[in-house]
Amino acid sequence: MDSETITLETGHTRGVFDITGKVARFAAIRGDGHLSLFVPHSTAGLAIIETGSGSEVDLIDMLDTIVPREDEKYRHRHGAPGHGADHLIPSLLSPSLVIPVLAGRMQLGAWQAIVLVDFNVDNAVRQVHFNFLFG
Amino acid sequence: MDSETITLETGHTRGVFDITGKVARFAAIRGDGHLSLFVPHSTAGLAIIETGSGSEVDLIDMLDTIVPREDEKYRHRHGAPGHGADHLIPSLLSPSLVIPVLAGRMQLGAWQAIVLVDFNVDNAVRQVHFNFLFG
Amino acid sequence: MDSETITLETGHTRGVFDITGKVARFAAIRGDGHLSLFVPHSTAGLAIIETGSGSEVDLIDMLDTIVPREDEKYRHRHGAPGHGADHLIPSLLSPSLVIPVLAGRMQLGAWQAIVLVDFNVDNAVRQVHFNFLFG
Repeated sequence: MDSETITLETGHTRGVFDITGKVARFAAIRGDGHLSLFVPHSTAGLAIIETGSGSEVDLIDMLDTIVPREDEKYRHRHGAPGHGADHLIPSLLSPSLVIPVLAGRMQLGAWQAIVLVDFNVDNAVRQVHFNFLFG
Repeated sequence: MDSETITLETGHTRGVFDITGKVARFAAIRGDGHLSLFVPHSTAGLAIIETGSGSEVDLIDMLDTIVPREDEKYRHRHGAPGHGADHLIPSLLSPSLVIPVLAGRMQLGAWQAIVLVDFNVDNAVRQVHFNFLFG
Repeated sequence: MDSETITLETGHTRGVFDITGKVARFAAIRGDGHLSLFVPHSTAGLAIIETGSGSEVDLIDMLDTIVPREDEKYRHRHGAPGHGADHLIPSLLSPSLVIPVLAGRMQLGAWQAIVLVDFNVDNAVRQVHFNFLFG
């Protein structure tokens, strides 16, 4: 298994970060296999969406509706405002994702991008683990 | 790694399509391993639910409540009505799914079925990539 | 591929069960690879969240909001009260999860725990399949 951990500057605001290029470069020299992505944080997750047409903002709006940010709704309420809600994000957007790779190319469709959805505002740097299991 | 891509006639309406039989046939001759399913489309996802008792319709109803279809709610609003909402479906129902297989049998429970949830109405044909990594 | 199935006493109420220790023990002696978890039940799912700070209860509250428990909302309505809603849980919290493992250690972050979210109240015992594909 080939492993690499990337570090992303996500800043102190919530955001949706397109990591497709980084994942593609990791996959490119590795032939056939299952590439797993794993985010070792509890207020972030992964998704595959189309980017560049507005869905990044729509995704955050949707999560704010599904998981409202009023702190009094949550048992988990230490930390920054919205922290209780932030901790539910990974239950909906899993921190674990597997991408099949053939001849070094991810089997993504033309409009699919891999994004890190990071709700953490206290830490400006986030990590993603890449692991390639050869097939 | 053994690979195959299936093509499904999903028509021009939204729908939930049971693909369990097709996946089972792909797994059947392949022994032990991790079978990944991957949908290369940005307005469709996968789920494992019980089929045949009404949950297919319940699932679409739930998604319509969580992700309302009024276009004015979305930044991503070109295309057919509801297209902005459709693009959020894969963030909740991931297009990637891994099924463990032992001696050619998926480890599904008695009531579990694998479904493609396709919200695309413009394209009547969808694909799913199957990849089997032997263990 | 190394395989093991664990059995959990989940009782007759809905609950969130931390299985991190059991998964860690299975991974510990197995080196590098992809560890898949799979729940063979249709009213339960898996998630990775922080436990011990209240998010377990917050998660059930969130699901009750997203997937309301009034039976008249569902086509699938045989069984115990809330059964129609219960059957939608695995579409949001997938029963399948892959964890990368390096040198016998899961790549979980410090605050991440693996939980079984079981909405079934009729069966007091649930299973989770562990499979380790060596890399």
